[in-house]
Amino acid sequence: MKLYDYGRAPNPRRVKIFLAEKGVEVELVNCDMTKREHKTPEFLKKNPSGKIPVLELDDGRCLAESVAICRYIEAMHPEPNLMGRDPFEMGHIEMRNRQIETELWSQIGVSWVNGPVVGAMGIYKQIPAAKEASDVNVHAYYERIDKELGESTYIAGDRFTIVDITLLTAIDFATAMVGLKPKDSLANLWRWHALVCERDSVDAQE
Amino acid sequence: MKLYDYGRAPNPRRVKIFLAEKGVEVELVNCDMTKREHKTPEFLKKNPSGKIPVLELDDGRCLAESVAICRYIEAMHPEPNLMGRDPFEMGHIEMRNRQIETELWSQIGVSWVNGPVVGAMGIYKQIPAAKEASDVNVHAYYERIDKELGESTYIAGDRFTIVDITLLTAIDFATAMVGLKPKDSLANLWRWHALVCERDSVDAQE
Repeated sequence: MKLYDYGRAPNPRRVKIFLAEKGVEVELVNCDMTKREHKTPEFLKKNPSGKIPVLELDDGRCLAESVAICRYIEAMHPEPNLMGRDPFEMGHIEMRNRQIETELWSQIGVSWVNGPVVGAMGIYKQIPAAKEASDVNVHAYYERIDKELGESTYIAGDRFTIVDITLLTAIDFATAMVGLKPKDSLANLWRWHALVCERDSVDAQE
Repeated sequence: MKLYDYGRAPNPRRVKIFLAEKGVEVELVNCDMTKREHKTPEFLKKNPSGKIPVLELDDGRCLAESVAICRYIEAMHPEPNLMGRDPFEMGHIEMRNRQIETELWSQIGVSWVNGPVVGAMGIYKQIPAAKEASDVNVHAYYERIDKELGESTYIAGDRFTIVDITLLTAIDFATAMVGLKPKDSLANLWRWHALVCERDSVDAQE
């Protein structure tokens, strides 16, 4: 299998951490986003949405969308379980993962496309008022997470799951690339961050 | 089980169609969003995100997020299968569902919160430039869907799945509430829409 990847781009990183947790090795193919290699006609045959990561199977079939790729890997390699062992836990993990995607990741994305790095690329008509709102939303969601991590070791309960991967990659991208580092006073969040960063998977396949 | 619901709100509708396809009956509890009943302290205990739908099990545990609720129902009631029968199909259906969510639903949402209905509520600081961009994105995605539906009967292949529910509820909400009806010239899209609307589930439990 091949994974179309690009450096520390956050969504491919989600899949690389997931694969490392599973002990599944893939060939990494560099897709240089600065050269728009994810928008070429050949690449759009693999993923019409023009995004990475894409997992290409040995028979040529492709899967895009980080969590969809993880769903496939989870079904092919059930252990260690990262997406739920019984119907309620499967629902609970999906709920937590989606809340972080729709309420945190999406807002980091708004701040990113309307921020200085994307602005310098000149590829997107920026809306400064949108970034003002999303910056506020991101910090508000960090507060919620800090409160929740006062009640459980990991974000979806007492064990490491895909939700921790989603949250870690969101926070690390927001901190490094979007100027949205969580405040130092969020002790539960930083306790969790240090715990998760001890895992070998976190710096996998870079 | 109870489902916290509100009229034709599009996300509860997704779950109601899914439940009807499965033949699973639940008690519907009206959560009047115009009275902000989804933001009360009691409701926030069920879902800290303050959103509907929420599925409350008989033991009091709750699940929020439409697809997370569907994931639980799919695991409890596997037939008819709506989320994939094998690892690749599970990944493929999740990919298609997420593409519609992140590239169509999200843009309909931007047009909705920045449009006249929400404007009249006075609960949100609107950004007209955001709506201008999202309106364009919605119509561009309709074009993509029309092309794809020229190649398959349903949106994720040759059978009805959760992806058809996601797409139907998006288009119906955009048409009825956001002024974003797909153009009449999109013949494949409207062929599919008529086909899906023949199903008994589509008007379930209103």
